[in-house]
Amino acid sequence: MTERDDFALLDAWWRAANYLSVGQIYLMDNPLLREKLSLSHIKPRLLGHWGTTPGLNFVYAHMNRAIAARELDAIFIAGPGHGGPGVVANTYLEGTYSEVYPDIGRNADGMKRLFMQFSFPGGIPSHVAPETPGSIHEGGELGYSLLHAYGAVFDNPGLLACCVIGDGEAETGALAASWHSNKFLNPESDGAVLPILHLNGYKIAGPTVLARIPDEELAQLLRGYGHEPYFVAGHEPAQMHRLMAAALDKALDEIHAIQASAREHGFRERPRWPMIVLRSPKGWTGPRQVDGVPVEGTFRAHQVPLTGFSGKPEHVGLLEDWMRSYRPEELFDAAGALRPEIAALAPKAAKRMSANPHANGGLLLRDLAMPPFREHAVEVAVPGAADAQATRVAGLFLRDVMRRNEAARNFRVMGPDETTSNRLDALFDVTARTSTAEILAGDDHVAPDGRVMEVLSEHLCQGWLEGYLLTGRHGFFSCYEAFIHIIDSMFNQHAKWLKVARCIGWRRPIASLNYLLTSHVWRQDHNGFSHQDPGFLDHVVNKKAEVVRVYLPPDANTLLSVVDHCLRSRNYVNVIVAGKQPGPQWLDIESAVRHCTVGLGIWTWASNDEDAAPDVVMACAGDVPTLEALAAVDLLRKMLPELKVRVVNVVDLMALQSPDAHPHGRPDAVFDAIFTTDRPVIFAFHGYPSLIHRLTYKRANHDNFHVHGYCEEGTTTTPFDMTVLNRLDRFHLAADAIARVERFRNSAGHVQQHLRDKLLEHRAYVNVHGKDMPEIEDWRWTN
Amino acid sequence: MTERDDFALLDAWWRAANYLSVGQIYLMDNPLLREKLSLSHIKPRLLGHWGTTPGLNFVYAHMNRAIAARELDAIFIAGPGHGGPGVVANTYLEGTYSEVYPDIGRNADGMKRLFMQFSFPGGIPSHVAPETPGSIHEGGELGYSLLHAYGAVFDNPGLLACCVIGDGEAETGALAASWHSNKFLNPESDGAVLPILHLNGYKIAGPTVLARIPDEELAQLLRGYGHEPYFVAGHEPAQMHRLMAAALDKALDEIHAIQASAREHGFRERPRWPMIVLRSPKGWTGPRQVDGVPVEGTFRAHQVPLTGFSGKPEHVGLLEDWMRSYRPEELFDAAGALRPEIAALAPKAAKRMSANPHANGGLLLRDLAMPPFREHAVEVAVPGAADAQATRVAGLFLRDVMRRNEAARNFRVMGPDETTSNRLDALFDVTARTSTAEILAGDDHVAPDGRVMEVLSEHLCQGWLEGYLLTGRHGFFSCYEAFIHIIDSMFNQHAKWLKVARCIGWRRPIASLNYLLTSHVWRQDHNGFSHQDPGFLDHVVNKKAEVVRVYLPPDANTLLSVVDHCLRSRNYVNVIVAGKQPGPQWLDIESAVRHCTVGLGIWTWASNDEDAAPDVVMACAGDVPTLEALAAVDLLRKMLPELKVRVVNVVDLMALQSPDAHPHGRPDAVFDAIFTTDRPVIFAFHGYPSLIHRLTYKRANHDNFHVHGYCEEGTTTTPFDMTVLNRLDRFHLAADAIARVERFRNSAGHVQQHLRDKLLEHRAYVNVHGKDMPEIEDWRWTN
Repeated sequence: MTERDDFALLDAWWRAANYLSVGQIYLMDNPLLREKLSLSHIKPRLLGHWGTTPGLNFVYAHMNRAIAARELDAIFIAGPGHGGPGVVANTYLEGTYSEVYPDIGRNADGMKRLFMQFSFPGGIPSHVAPETPGSIHEGGELGYSLLHAYGAVFDNPGLLACCVIGDGEAETGALAASWHSNKFLNPESDGAVLPILHLNGYKIAGPTVLARIPDEELAQLLRGYGHEPYFVAGHEPAQMHRLMAAALDKALDEIHAIQASAREHGFRERPRWPMIVLRSPKGWTGPRQVDGVPVEGTFRAHQVPLTGFSGKPEHVGLLEDWMRSYRPEELFDAAGALRPEIAALAPKAAKRMSANPHANGGLLLRDLAMPPFREHAVEVAVPGAADAQATRVAGLFLRDVMRRNEAARNFRVMGPDETTSNRLDALFDVTARTSTAEILAGDDHVAPDGRVMEVLSEHLCQGWLEGYLLTGRHGFFSCYEAFIHIIDSMFNQHAKWLKVARCIGWRRPIASLNYLLTSHVWRQDHNGFSHQDPGFLDHVVNKKAEVVRVYLPPDANTLLSVVDHCLRSRNYVNVIVAGKQPGPQWLDIESAVRHCTVGLGIWTWASNDEDAAPDVVMACAGDVPTLEALAAVDLLRKMLPELKVRVVNVVDLMALQSPDAHPHGRPDAVFDAIFTTDRPVIFAFHGYPSLIHRLTYKRANHDNFHVHGYCEEGTTTTPFDMTVLNRLDRFHLAADAIARVERFRNSAGHVQQHLRDKLLEHRAYVNVHGKDMPEIEDWRWTN
Repeated sequence: MTERDDFALLDAWWRAANYLSVGQIYLMDNPLLREKLSLSHIKPRLLGHWGTTPGLNFVYAHMNRAIAARELDAIFIAGPGHGGPGVVANTYLEGTYSEVYPDIGRNADGMKRLFMQFSFPGGIPSHVAPETPGSIHEGGELGYSLLHAYGAVFDNPGLLACCVIGDGEAETGALAASWHSNKFLNPESDGAVLPILHLNGYKIAGPTVLARIPDEELAQLLRGYGHEPYFVAGHEPAQMHRLMAAALDKALDEIHAIQASAREHGFRERPRWPMIVLRSPKGWTGPRQVDGVPVEGTFRAHQVPLTGFSGKPEHVGLLEDWMRSYRPEELFDAAGALRPEIAALAPKAAKRMSANPHANGGLLLRDLAMPPFREHAVEVAVPGAADAQATRVAGLFLRDVMRRNEAARNFRVMGPDETTSNRLDALFDVTARTSTAEILAGDDHVAPDGRVMEVLSEHLCQGWLEGYLLTGRHGFFSCYEAFIHIIDSMFNQHAKWLKVARCIGWRRPIASLNYLLTSHVWRQDHNGFSHQDPGFLDHVVNKKAEVVRVYLPPDANTLLSVVDHCLRSRNYVNVIVAGKQPGPQWLDIESAVRHCTVGLGIWTWASNDEDAAPDVVMACAGDVPTLEALAAVDLLRKMLPELKVRVVNVVDLMALQSPDAHPHGRPDAVFDAIFTTDRPVIFAFHGYPSLIHRLTYKRANHDNFHVHGYCEEGTTTTPFDMTVLNRLDRFHLAADAIARVERFRNSAGHVQQHLRDKLLEHRAYVNVHGKDMPEIEDWRWTN
């Protein structure tokens, strides 16, 4: 086959993809234009984004040529994911679409259904989405394509991620930062990313930044990012095919050479990775002008270039001309199937980017080899008698997980430079921080093959991890609690992906996304107010109950049990909140496992209501609240021994909800038995108090819930003072408990006075000495 | 004065700042080391970040020299804001600190207090914070320094923002994207930013990316960002002073030349702005080694290099040696005051960066000239009879505001390329999109002096606006509702700043940060599930009630009234949610103003309970929920005329809370009179239902609240189908209302059947026709 033939077929594929893209946006009938187009064939609501689509189709077609020629194992990531019809069109041309959705056959009838379903009620979304075969990337929210690409290729040395980045997307913070991902990519043991920066010049209405700086300045920028850019610019198809094929071959040759060298000689220094800049008109091959106004190459091509058919019947003819310009009769046979010589351009079977198993990661997912977490159990002979740093203990377990799965290379830990700060540094017994940039002699556990990924960007940690999980591996993300809000919106998109993917039969479950939020609100006393925000939990519970889990283990053993559980789970987002500071330990390991299994329960060893009705329930969730609640109980038992207090601890926050609201929700009968139906409940909570009300407002006893939590009061102060400022401390909790029990309300004045005195004593002490009173610093609850 | 003298004094200033920084971190007594240092002088809790501090002090000292020499009007933005003690030290040396905090005098006693208060209970935070004179930038969460710098200098042609960017911070998404801010800076009418990228090599524990790429690659990156970088690298103070002074002079000369040219000839093309790369050791001038381990120049210098004094008494001597290495006796006189020849280095009065009025923007704030919003009122003869696009009407008003304040140049509108999409394009009648990058003939309203700032980065919009407001101007940020979560964490920090700043006497109120969230969850039917998230409201209400306001105007006239109110307000974050699609109008302008003033109320014109007790209350908040609620009422009145329905609309969401929870909260008596104490309330809400429960759970009638809202169900479908998927539609609302009223529960079976039939009819219609049933598309409620 000559080069000319090659490009003719390539061009035919591109025209076919463009034709099918336009068809999806516009048509509900007459898919092959066998009859003259009429208004009745056109959808009543026209939705979709044409502008970016022909460029995506162009890249996809060229990738197919390269995959076939080089037997590449590649996936396609469409940063401009609004171009959904384009990616769907290619997966349909490859046959994958009909394999996973048999009702969308490779014939005229299937094509009609393909067109009809797009952006249609009961059909498929307008963006690249979980429904799209071959995708690990939702195209709705922009900014995360390059991160997903890198996440996919870490530890996948044979994989190439072709990542198209829109020039709109390139303006986002996450994308701008993610170029530096190449300082974390090891050519010896990781795969490669081929970024294709697609300059089509416009966003919805305005020009893009990168399309409006000189080529030389752009080239400097990309070289500064560590890339060697190859430019492909123009609009004339034949010339563009030649340029693109040459650039792609050059880039793939260089990637091959980089990898071959690293694999022969071992990693020596960070290479300069190739990339492509593709400058093509927005809405390329679409209408040049509509109603006398330029469209192709302008922002007007962004969405649907031709509209208003009922009012402007001449537009029907323009649409037909446009579609016929792709010469569908040359592309599809009489039955509506893609002609075999064009179809032959597609790679075979799992080499098709739409059928690559990496993009349906659950297919490749292997269970983690799980070491026994009980080995790291803290011995707790008597509740409160032992001290431990919960995250440090969890770090030992994570180290074992890392070691046990070292050979499988399917587990990574992410964190914004906080692994040591968060006391997970046992991991460095067996691995290092990842870096393929310069490493100096004095660096602490930094290596090109490290498996702890630290970068001061929560966006990068999150995006890499998503890509890693979606391609069938496992991971763990530890983060300062307050700053996890930086990825609120990324979490949203991942949770939405999981919610949709669960209902797609051919998508296999992937490992859960596990967060450990530590350096939390109650122990950011030293960094102060800016570092105090427990609101990620509120954000998380807005998403579908099927995919979110929230755990607040009160000590090291419960944390061990929770981490073990989360690492084994699938298709969830697990949020764990735990402290890193030394604290008292409450449960021996078997009690901890039992407690975590039920999610919430009465701590009888801390209660004195002996199966009778208590006067008051002291509930707690979170490590510091648990300590303060138990210290309050201690005070009460000493000063008001006749007060019957029941202690309830909640480790699985979702257990508070009703079973119809969350799969972990406990039935009303169980809940009522624990929290009573009529006794006051003083609830010491880690986060904003309203969350407890939100989770329990349908429960019988809700009106008696009095929640103490973070009230957005804080500064640089002492740990105990933080609880006082927010009235979560033992003295406020004890005082509240007494005040809520009628029979003590008037008789316990001396106790209330004592509690007020203790608060005044604290205030005086802390303001003078700058540290907590010795009896508070002790942090120990004694039964 | 010779250059040598110059640098000697400069070095003395630097040593003084370093001395005071170390003192703040360590000492509670013996501030001038008049006696031998002992354990009793050292704070019991050592908190602070030494590592970045000497570099900040170095830059500050050099800026002072330049300000004095060139009579600059400059502010200092400390990206590595953890170096709080450094910035505080400089403001103290300048005298400003003692002016605003008279108890911290410029003598030994004041110095002792200065040291004592740092990171001490009741004292000041460890980071640069609202308490720090001269700062507009909280240094806790990293990433936003450069954005604040640009925001400050827009429309401040005389102002220079010296912005130190840490190499840790530089890894964040927001910072990485914000380099391109220079494509939005006009040298003719804006001031200048001098970025100083501070490479000190390490974050908490790991190396930084930008410190570990070759200088030439870094220079390419910075040139690619549009800068000309000047490198200052080393550690020997005398040499570093010479290099820094030369680089600073060079950069300031270039800035002057750029501005002079643009101001003489008008803006011609985007210049290449200078910047400085400062490479100095982390913890510079601090302990070289501690316990045999290198500290200076390593990650170990990040926080407190010397600790454990009680266990290692020899560390006391090391600390004393360290502090004496700055030769305090040469710096401070017998009384503890800075020696006059050193003090003379500081600029005078308001030229001091710590006293620059731009950094206390309320001092400069002028009211916006407000045009009459009633001019744009939609005529509403009968509720529901008129149609309008709410945001389009608001756009006309914003246009007038823009025009009226054109001369004052103190109002900008931000948005991620969505001004037209969000129907605010009337603004382009009077201004354009800002760009100083290349502009092409076909561009739509793009100009270097435009005042609408569009960039596809919510981070940039938010950060610029914060900087603009904090320096005493006004602004408005319109955003797709779902993607405002991208700046959740930035909102947190701004809300926290406002909460703290309100209580600082010398800080003057600034204009509120106004969000218009549109293209909202109910009308993202075309973009689908990824674009549907109304949860920003939940996030916002976690912050202090004093600073947050949430408005859900149901139509154009209420939106006009709300926008007018928000633009006049101070020190708040105002969140407005409003639709852009055509919708029915309910209130004439005077009714709208009255309704917005009270915040919530009974719509008697839509109710049929005529001052008697209703059978059911139909409440609503948000434009689509209001429409559906009224349509449900219409159905009920036609089919069950004997059912007494009261309609309540809520425009000010915070009015639902109790007065003790929010200043806008309505008293229980008023709330109960409106919502009753015992009748079912069917509440149609814009966002997640739990928010209404959260705001009302203390109200008497709460158990009767049945909230319909977004349940995280959505896809690409029709507008009405979105409400059906989430059971917010008229049929579900009407059915719920009947089911909750005992006397109709069993007798209204025919109505319930009719409502179910309508839902089935809808489902069948929409799935076949891909659009809403004609009677639904009509969207009109008829009384």
